[in-house]
Formats: sequence, C-alpha cells, structure tokens
Amino acid sequence: MGELLLIGMGLHDENGLTLRGLNAARDCDALYAELHTSIMPGLSVARLERLLRKEIKILTRKDLEEGAERTILSKAKEARVALLTPGDPMSATTHLGLLLSAKKLGIPTVLIHSTSIITAAAGVTGLELYKFGRTVTIPSPRTNPAPESVYEFIKDNRRIGLHTLALLDIDDGQFTIPEAIRVLFRLEDTKRDGIITDDTLVVALARVEAPDCIVRADKAGNLLKSNFGEPPWSIILPSKLHFMEAEALQLLAGAPRAVLEVRG
Amino acid sequence: MGELLLIGMGLHDENGLTLRGLNAARDCDALYAELHTSIMPGLSVARLERLLRKEIKILTRKDLEEGAERTILSKAKEARVALLTPGDPMSATTHLGLLLSAKKLGIPTVLIHSTSIITAAAGVTGLELYKFGRTVTIPSPRTNPAPESVYEFIKDNRRIGLHTLALLDIDDGQFTIPEAIRVLFRLEDTKRDGIITDDTLVVALARVEAPDCIVRADKAGNLLKSNFGEPPWSIILPSKLHFMEAEALQLLAGAPRAVLEVRG
Repeated sequence: MGELLLIGMGLHDENGLTLRGLNAARDCDALYAELHTSIMPGLSVARLERLLRKEIKILTRKDLEEGAERTILSKAKEARVALLTPGDPMSATTHLGLLLSAKKLGIPTVLIHSTSIITAAAGVTGLELYKFGRTVTIPSPRTNPAPESVYEFIKDNRRIGLHTLALLDIDDGQFTIPEAIRVLFRLEDTKRDGIITDDTLVVALARVEAPDCIVRADKAGNLLKSNFGEPPWSIILPSKLHFMEAEALQLLAGAPRAVLEVRG
Repeated sequence: MGELLLIGMGLHDENGLTLRGLNAARDCDALYAELHTSIMPGLSVARLERLLRKEIKILTRKDLEEGAERTILSKAKEARVALLTPGDPMSATTHLGLLLSAKKLGIPTVLIHSTSIITAAAGVTGLELYKFGRTVTIPSPRTNPAPESVYEFIKDNRRIGLHTLALLDIDDGQFTIPEAIRVLFRLEDTKRDGIITDDTLVVALARVEAPDCIVRADKAGNLLKSNFGEPPWSIILPSKLHFMEAEALQLLAGAPRAVLEVRG
C-alpha cells in the first residue's frame, strides 16, 4: 500500500525541517525534492541525504507538472514516497495539482507543514501579521511584463489599511530588490495612484532565517541604490503603522525616524 | 553576554519544532515556554523537557506582559535564554513587545520560525494561499462582544475576491465552531450585507497537523450541528473559488458538490 507525503523544508537550509518532517522522511521508501519554487541558499542536497539516510531524486518543474504520473505518482501507488519542498508545501499551486492527482488515483496523502516566508516576513519586521492583506509576486520583466494587477492588489490592500508582502519572481536569482522597485515605479508612472514614490517606506528582506538575513526599512529611493547580497528576496509595502510597528521597524529594520514620520 | 531567542514550536506537538529550533534550544542556558497564545493538543511539557534536555519554566500571560523585566529579560542579560512559543513566534503581539524590550536593553535577539496556522490552514484545504486577505479572530461572547469589525473585515476581503481565515478566540477551549458561526449570524442580523447565511460555504478546521485533524467544507447551517472534537479550531470563509480550489474542497474537505455550485 502506497502513500504520498508532501513535506515542507521551511526556510534557508535543511534545519528548516520540523522533527515531524524529519521522522516521516526517514520512514519513507523513496524521497524526491523540488528546489525550483523557492531558493534555499543554505541547502545542501548531500547533507540532506545524510540527514534523511536516503538518496533524494531532484524533480524539475516539468517532472512535476507534466511527468508526475510516470515518476512520483507511479511510485507512490506501491511505496511510501515523500516530496520535499521549500517552505510550507502547499504554498505553490503545482503541489496542489500533485496532491489532487494522488487523491484521484486513490493514493493516501499526508501533508507536513513548515515555516513559510508569509509569516516569517511579518515576524522579522515586527509588522502585525493580522494587518497583512493579499500576498503578491512581482514578476521579472525578463519572464513576464509587470501586470497592472500587482499594483492594484497593493492599492486594494492599502485602501483597507493592510500591508502587502511582495515576493520576487525567482528568475534564476537575477531579479533583485532594486529591479522590483523599478517595476513598481513603472506601474506608478502609468497608474498614478500614489502607491509608490521615491519617499515611500519599503521594507527589504533578504535570506530570511539565514544567519546573514537582511531586514531593512527605508525610502524606496534609498533602497534602489542598495545591494542585498544573494537571494531569496522580498519586499513589504507597509500601510499605516501602529506606533509599536513603527518602533519595531526602527529597532528591527533600522528605519530612519524621518521615513516613519512621513507616514504619520 | 546574554541573548534572547524566540523559538516557534509550530503546530500540534513538540514535533512541530524545526531542527534549527531544536538545536538552538539545546544550546540555551535556560528555557521558558508560553502555552497561552494557542492550543497545542499533543504537546507534553515533560516530553519537550526530555527532548531539549533541560527544565522548562512555563510563563503565564501576566509573566510575559507585566513581569518580563523581572523574569526572562533579567536572565537574558547574562545567559542564553529561549522562549518557546506555539506556531511561528511573532504571530502574537505580546512577543513583539518582549523582543522590543530586549532590544532596548541591548540584549541580542534571535528569531527561529516554525509552522503557522496561517499558511497551514490554506494548505490543508487546497485554497490558494495568495487569495487570502486579512486574518481575523472571532472573539468569544464570554470574553468580548463580537465587534462589527470582524464582519467588516470578512466583507472587505470578499469584495476584492479574497478568502478569510478566522481563528477562534481560545477562551479555555470552550468557544466552538458552531458558536463562532452563530456569532457571525448575529452580526449578519445587524449588518445585513449577505456575508453569511445558512447556505454559505464555510470550511471548518480542527487540530491542523494532528493525526486526527478535521477539514470539512459544508454549508454554515450544516456545520452548526456538528461536533469537531477538541481544539484548536478555526474556520475559513471562502470567496469566489477557482475551479481547482473547488475540486480541492471536494477531495480534501468533503465539500458536497451542491454547496460549491451555489457559489458559482
């Protein structure tokens, strides 16, 4: 009797696995991993294999989206099989497709969660988790022209007092925070609703949960000139701040007081 | 030289700790835990102490909110001290207060994340994480009259096509899913914006990440008559569904097809 487990590896490296994930993975007959839905800068597949005491086959996007029946699902009909994923496993739509395909084939499924950037990003900045609206992804101009919807979603969130977490398109780690801010500036040039200008407070995040994690709140114009090291990157576009959030951005993200005062 | 670590224990039991959290906690000189910001039904403090090889002092809400300077912070000035918390540590505002107090005292701080119900709830239902708006908490009538803001937040989310995760007030594990739905019904009686009726699709969640986790999508009227076992509980009020989300609710949450068709 087979089984399919989706196990989240959390952020940064193999230490983002939970004990539940570790124990379940060690009990599996076969292990697969996908490393394309997010970047885990500290992850070593060799170390992960030693930790889990088993060989791990890395699946590409195509393996999972088009070839899942032939690879992981055919194996999961007869054996206990896990797919290890970055973050919390269901954050990527492609994994929902796999889970539903397994269900339709009558394969029992188990989900084992872990840390997601969605809550960790709020945590490292001190911004109130319950004041975040819809999360958006800013597409790289090399893979996708910036859809106006990204701008509209940030506007919708801000209109009702909510912060926006904007993940950056992966684009092989080439789409940087300054480039993402420029994408938003270009949308502002077209839409002109005052969502982002040089003086707008933006929080830049790099490598959350890594020892060299960067969390920096500043004017968008200042962040444009900065280098945040290696990916993964994301930014937060805060809405109106509670005084404790403003204090947190000063103490945890080095926000200059003047930037916060601009937002009142 | 002291240090304060906030370490998330994730969901359900001590196996929700990440390997990073486990290793960091074992390296601490003193361990504290708070167990009041969420319910972890499978957690045994004795097992956790064996796992972390150290005694753990449980702090009450009052210890943390009024007495932190005298307890955990005075210790963290000189020693490596961790506070273990349910979920992802910064989901509770009280922990931000502690972190900022530590910063102001010059104590170095470290955050170690884990699973949060915010992303896990989306995961177990198959609802698209990027289609969730602001998360709300439904207060128990025994601790707090239901503020109209809860209703307004759900309405705001739905107006822009977003699902709402509604956590249930803890209230010593006495505030059940049927009671929470009745709170929303009473708000509907007053506000009359058609946000929730007997026929509205609601997803009930109990004990996410536990072996006996319940995920059930049905009409609000049907959920009113159900018993979901022990806490923690939450509900999701979905907005318009993508066809894959509708399929997920059938396969993962047993949604009757008729309920989904009602929502078009």
